[in-house]
Amino acid sequence: MAASYRAPLRLAIAGLGTVGTGVVALLQDRARLLQARCDRALILQAVSARTLGRDRGVNLEGVAWEPDAQALATREDVDVVVELIGGHEPTGPAYRLVERALQEGKHVVTANKALMAHHGAHLAALAEDAGASLLFEAAVAGGTPVIKTMTDGLVANHYHAITGILNGTCNYILSVMERTGRPFDDVLREAQQRGYAEANPGTDIDGIDAAHKLSLLSALAFGTTPDIGACYCEGIRHIRASDMAAAGELGYRIRLIGVTRQDAGSGDIELRVHPALLARHTPMAEVEDVTNAIRIDTDALGPMLIQGPGAGRLPTASAVVANVLDIARANCLPAFIKPASQLTTPRIRPIATISQRYYLRVHVEDHPGVLAALAQMFACHGISVARLVQHERDAAGQVRIVLTTHACREEAMRAALADMEQLSSLRAGPPCLIRIEEGPRD
Amino acid sequence: MAASYRAPLRLAIAGLGTVGTGVVALLQDRARLLQARCDRALILQAVSARTLGRDRGVNLEGVAWEPDAQALATREDVDVVVELIGGHEPTGPAYRLVERALQEGKHVVTANKALMAHHGAHLAALAEDAGASLLFEAAVAGGTPVIKTMTDGLVANHYHAITGILNGTCNYILSVMERTGRPFDDVLREAQQRGYAEANPGTDIDGIDAAHKLSLLSALAFGTTPDIGACYCEGIRHIRASDMAAAGELGYRIRLIGVTRQDAGSGDIELRVHPALLARHTPMAEVEDVTNAIRIDTDALGPMLIQGPGAGRLPTASAVVANVLDIARANCLPAFIKPASQLTTPRIRPIATISQRYYLRVHVEDHPGVLAALAQMFACHGISVARLVQHERDAAGQVRIVLTTHACREEAMRAALADMEQLSSLRAGPPCLIRIEEGPRD
Repeated sequence: MAASYRAPLRLAIAGLGTVGTGVVALLQDRARLLQARCDRALILQAVSARTLGRDRGVNLEGVAWEPDAQALATREDVDVVVELIGGHEPTGPAYRLVERALQEGKHVVTANKALMAHHGAHLAALAEDAGASLLFEAAVAGGTPVIKTMTDGLVANHYHAITGILNGTCNYILSVMERTGRPFDDVLREAQQRGYAEANPGTDIDGIDAAHKLSLLSALAFGTTPDIGACYCEGIRHIRASDMAAAGELGYRIRLIGVTRQDAGSGDIELRVHPALLARHTPMAEVEDVTNAIRIDTDALGPMLIQGPGAGRLPTASAVVANVLDIARANCLPAFIKPASQLTTPRIRPIATISQRYYLRVHVEDHPGVLAALAQMFACHGISVARLVQHERDAAGQVRIVLTTHACREEAMRAALADMEQLSSLRAGPPCLIRIEEGPRD
Repeated sequence: MAASYRAPLRLAIAGLGTVGTGVVALLQDRARLLQARCDRALILQAVSARTLGRDRGVNLEGVAWEPDAQALATREDVDVVVELIGGHEPTGPAYRLVERALQEGKHVVTANKALMAHHGAHLAALAEDAGASLLFEAAVAGGTPVIKTMTDGLVANHYHAITGILNGTCNYILSVMERTGRPFDDVLREAQQRGYAEANPGTDIDGIDAAHKLSLLSALAFGTTPDIGACYCEGIRHIRASDMAAAGELGYRIRLIGVTRQDAGSGDIELRVHPALLARHTPMAEVEDVTNAIRIDTDALGPMLIQGPGAGRLPTASAVVANVLDIARANCLPAFIKPASQLTTPRIRPIATISQRYYLRVHVEDHPGVLAALAQMFACHGISVARLVQHERDAAGQVRIVLTTHACREEAMRAALADMEQLSSLRAGPPCLIRIEEGPRD
């Protein structure tokens, strides 16, 4: 640890988009600071990007250009490959680059949540076989260091549950809908104009991005292989501003959350992404706009919360460079804390078997007996209504009913909704079902 | 990183109080988990405590007892000394143990904020000379891993500012005063009964404990030697429940905070612990009871917040064991990120030169002209009043005035208060001055 000469660490970056150029900028404009903090020089040796030569606002003089990213994996003058291409298809450039680089014994740093969620266990095993590191702090919550918090800070704990606001785009849209009462489509368009949502927004607003991140946090927490296929995933397209208002009157706010929790007895794991009603004035409910927040519940520490920017050029680059410094400092662990060979296959609990409270908005014909029929239907399925508000009928003669239930199994609620489909008076409009997340008791 | 045989790491613990027995409990009840996470067995070799033999609810069979803690420093069968004695006097057992252990080349883990705040730079240099680690995660925010967040997670960033609720005792007392309107002395007694405050509570309620922690965070952030002597420190004894109510009417809550911030131009550092008005509904203002919260402002990531239990047996033990695993994993750094020889002496800005907004409560005689005299006095010192509320006079014929100012230098405010002392009509009761912390703009 005393000052000593150590060979520079030689880097290659694949992908010079927003984050890639951010990484180059950080490496260049604070080279002395980074060297002081890891006792070693960091040298950018080579880069690769789809279009060469374009001005990206960073100085790449003296840095080798590879037209094919794969070439970075085999360069003898590179110790660490930074993968910022994106995509998770086994035939795609990101997967092929990471696989090959690890096989060559190079360390890999990636921000690619989809790649790690789909192939994390395989790639972690490759890394360990080669004695290399595979680090992905930037894949979850951008620059906010939640993965390090789990692998290092809370390493003495058993994990109980993780609850997170993991997608900035959804949180921004929901925050604006709530503040302004504007409809989803309108706010989505604005988010796209401001660069908070992609032109093709499905990955974000359908919860897929959050599911990628959650499956990685779940794997870290419970020592399992990431299992994106088993993650229940529901987005926010069906939420209306009037739901936000109704939730507000009930003392809640609506957020897209990811929850993973292990049952102490059975070891079964919940893994689910969906909108949820969160009690107002709890820290998670108060998270606004593109901020990410993760609550971690453990046995020794108790609950802790970490929140910060979940995306963006320099925040994400901050996490990538932190992982580069991990490698420079030889501060390296198996990708998922435990060796890949010791990771178990998670038993994910089907969403139908989970018991929780619900918020339900239904639109019904306004005629005598409809409320009785609705109440009877819930009673039939053993569902107990906690609160119910029936609004005045609208111009079309329909009545909007908003209710919350006490805890019941999701399959009971689904059966009730299916019955509702059969009752003509109860299907004047599509019902909207949102889970109420009460979280672990402190 | 592949599974390999590595020698067990041999530990000694000095101090078997609340935290010490918590560490023993964690090491024993999750030995397999810890071994899997660091690929190495952890063995408790020896302990030392003032009273031997007392039942502490943990199994110490087969563990050597040393009546004198100093003996742990020289045992050949010990790799890591865990110091949980407390105290920072150079003649005291904690200092002598840590110094000697480091001189012997042993790694040291400590939860002792006072020791590190007073002697951190000296002890860090000893550690580096011996090639040993000196780790102190548990010294700040208990088990909430704020130090690791700074040394690892945000390592690619320049730090701008850190603002923290760093003392759970004060936050508990202020939270209860606010909720119940009960007076300080009464709530302090309750906190003592519940174990949230010491019998001799000065270290907590006079801000000294928070100052120890803040000086460590400041040293980590700005690459300086910890300088507890230069930390401005003001406690909460003078806060009344009526101040909480008045602050609430103005849209604020009162919390004891620590702030350290580096001026980008001069490099001068603010280092101050005092009660402050924080705008309601900001994350820091909403922190209740014994929770700690730290906001970290950096250049690349932007603002992030981390909060969790700031004290307690297992939370603190969680941080101690995390540091033991750092050593087991050979994941070790200089104590203050940079080598001790490169730490600079901080130029701490005198509190008198800091400019901020203020809350002031004064009690005046109720006769004509007193408000004019007060206003004139502020005007003389160039202090601009933002809001002023004069209450009806009380039974004693005194009037309470609560006001807030626009930003002014602290020395101007102090001069105004000194003038106030001269005006008989303006000194019917001691004034109460509280800073308004507006924090960095997001």
